[in-house]
Amino acid sequence: MLYLIGLGLADETDITVKGLEIVKRAERVYLEAYTSILLVDKEKLESFYGRDVIIADRETVETGSDDILQDAQEKDIAFLVVGDPFGATTHTDLVLRARELSIPIQSIPNASILSAIGSTGLQLYNFGQTVSMVFFTDNWRPSSFYDRIKENVSIGLHTLVLVDIKVKEQSYEDMARGRKVYQPPRYMTVAQCASQMLEIEDERKEQVYAPDSLAVGAARVGSKEQRLACGTLQELSQADLGPPLHSLVLLGKRAHDLERDYIRAFAIDEKTFDASWTKYYQGP
Amino acid sequence: MLYLIGLGLADETDITVKGLEIVKRAERVYLEAYTSILLVDKEKLESFYGRDVIIADRETVETGSDDILQDAQEKDIAFLVVGDPFGATTHTDLVLRARELSIPIQSIPNASILSAIGSTGLQLYNFGQTVSMVFFTDNWRPSSFYDRIKENVSIGLHTLVLVDIKVKEQSYEDMARGRKVYQPPRYMTVAQCASQMLEIEDERKEQVYAPDSLAVGAARVGSKEQRLACGTLQELSQADLGPPLHSLVLLGKRAHDLERDYIRAFAIDEKTFDASWTKYYQGP
Repeated sequence: MLYLIGLGLADETDITVKGLEIVKRAERVYLEAYTSILLVDKEKLESFYGRDVIIADRETVETGSDDILQDAQEKDIAFLVVGDPFGATTHTDLVLRARELSIPIQSIPNASILSAIGSTGLQLYNFGQTVSMVFFTDNWRPSSFYDRIKENVSIGLHTLVLVDIKVKEQSYEDMARGRKVYQPPRYMTVAQCASQMLEIEDERKEQVYAPDSLAVGAARVGSKEQRLACGTLQELSQADLGPPLHSLVLLGKRAHDLERDYIRAFAIDEKTFDASWTKYYQGP
Repeated sequence: MLYLIGLGLADETDITVKGLEIVKRAERVYLEAYTSILLVDKEKLESFYGRDVIIADRETVETGSDDILQDAQEKDIAFLVVGDPFGATTHTDLVLRARELSIPIQSIPNASILSAIGSTGLQLYNFGQTVSMVFFTDNWRPSSFYDRIKENVSIGLHTLVLVDIKVKEQSYEDMARGRKVYQPPRYMTVAQCASQMLEIEDERKEQVYAPDSLAVGAARVGSKEQRLACGTLQELSQADLGPPLHSLVLLGKRAHDLERDYIRAFAIDEKTFDASWTKYYQGP
């Protein structure tokens, strides 16, 4: 059996009781470690589980899935995923390959940022499609997120923006020379995300949002160190929410007064918050 | 401290290790039991936790929140919610009241149907806003869900339809006479949901979807007894997916070939599936 087990969002104790039981008795335990991270390291997990954990990087999962699935017809293999196994990213390929090999599959769900973002006080019913923001480079500034946000904005919905993480990435030079040397990990911040959003609005000028549009920055959601900051995109582009992981929600115009009451408590500046609320979000 | 603790979706072992530790040491433990249910009963939870659990029905939460919050400034109160505490429904009111009383709050996230629905193989990035479907009566057939689905359809997105549950409801007669007598619980099925959707399309005729539009019916998501059925709305309106809880996803036109490969394995009838796929979902 292939078990896809969600680890939740923050630390080693966010695994479910059911998930932990399977981890303890599985033949092998893999940790998917390239689409998201917990706020604790592999060693912490290993000591909590009382056993070894094998790191599965992108290469292993995408080209070496048969190694992961070896003997899974008879034995239990645990594949650990931060968040929910089918959350912000999916492991459809691995499951399809397991199906081909007639390996039974079970997934153990857990918290995902897609639902835990509800702890901002914004109603999950009011969210449109989720978008991703990658690190811009000098010559790669993909703006497809802008078109998606535009669709959400056109029907008044909030947009959750998930931000890039770079783990075990090679520099172009090292890649070109075939050197397996990796860059230190990088995690996008709310400030970088807000800046890139404003940069693209400035370029495309379709008035999807503005520097004084309201958004909520969220850091370390689901942990004791969770921090929320609500403000204009301009304010958030200068806010420091501390260590990763971050995400951002752009407010939709359908925002409700109850949502306002909730998020105003995290306002960077209540005056600018109230001004923007009145300008854009106060319904007819 | 007020702890809002998600229980996940299926049984008593879906609580997180962190959540269970708090339940074991809290002063009082409440179970919110009117917006969703686990697939196990209160007694099972109590024996797993080794302690009593107080059922909090709608009345208690909406009008008696100060009883729940009593002494929470000094003592730990656990408020258990099926799914994620801020998932399909929110307990914003309770949190706002706790804030007024200067009670610190922490939420322990868990799986929600909003992310666990990813186990259908449909990409969560391709979902628009979530809608709710209530039981129609002879003179109450609210169709606001139809307008919301129309918005999602217009931009090619999937729609998750959460279906009604009726727990501890009074009949109109008993309510009028002030008799606290409650009806047996009722849980909407995928078949009822698909039928009501077709009924409203038939009435409004805005061609938001059709009898041969594709959808995925999901039952008992996150449990070992999870069952998925993919088919036309017409087929699903006659499908029997067994015991609750059910939900349904209407496919958006932006559906990807990888999603098709995944869900075709659950097709009620591969022939009608392929025909509808070709008709509506095969991109240019």
